[in-house]
Amino acid sequence: MSNIQVVPPLEPEASEAVAPCCPPLTERPFTAEEAERTAKMFKALGDPVRLRLFSSIASHEGGEACVCDISDVGVSQPTVSHHLKKLKEAGLLTSERRGTWVYYRVEPSVLAAMGRLLTTTTAATATTTTA
Amino acid sequence: MSNIQVVPPLEPEASEAVAPCCPPLTERPFTAEEAERTAKMFKALGDPVRLRLFSSIASHEGGEACVCDISDVGVSQPTVSHHLKKLKEAGLLTSERRGTWVYYRVEPSVLAAMGRLLTTTTAATATTTTA
Repeated sequence: MSNIQVVPPLEPEASEAVAPCCPPLTERPFTAEEAERTAKMFKALGDPVRLRLFSSIASHEGGEACVCDISDVGVSQPTVSHHLKKLKEAGLLTSERRGTWVYYRVEPSVLAAMGRLLTTTTAATATTTTA
Repeated sequence: MSNIQVVPPLEPEASEAVAPCCPPLTERPFTAEEAERTAKMFKALGDPVRLRLFSSIASHEGGEACVCDISDVGVSQPTVSHHLKKLKEAGLLTSERRGTWVYYRVEPSVLAAMGRLLTTTTAATATTTTA
């Protein structure tokens, strides 16, 4: 009982790097600061390999997966690791080591916040006037 | 009847380039082809200036804006044009010339499709087991 090792959480700054923010894109023009924060999340999903890895993890049982579960995307293991790091830095994934493997988990709240950004609040009705 | 001129629609490739596709990211792993198509849309929003321009247009009256309405993002006019082109290529905007100005319009259907990608269908409940 007294031998509890306090293991520091694995790269805690990753999930804090990009907090969900900002109103829907259709509500009002983004400020420079809002755009900076939000662009990071979109950019992280703007790569086909990252998107495949992300959907593999997000759709895996319990919303989490081990690297061993998701390496079937046709790139090398170092490349997989690189992309997982990018997704973590964007706040879209967290990770935890358990024994031999590192498990990656999607952040449902971040995903939901990104979804809200794309909500169409303003009725984008056309006022088509021919000049 | 025989003299019908087939006028090609205004840059049709822009809106056809990336058709909304694919199930929510949480539903199943994306195929390579699905990831390629979808990553283009996320990548287009993965730049702060593009995101500001996009939110300016999306939040403008009627969901459309003239370049004259949206140039207040601290970059040169050619840079604005470059970014608007990227957003069009990703299928997120369409454009139409009316008199002197080109008007840009968001594609609500594309925005909605992107929103659906981020829907959390699978209950991402943690099955936290300590190894």
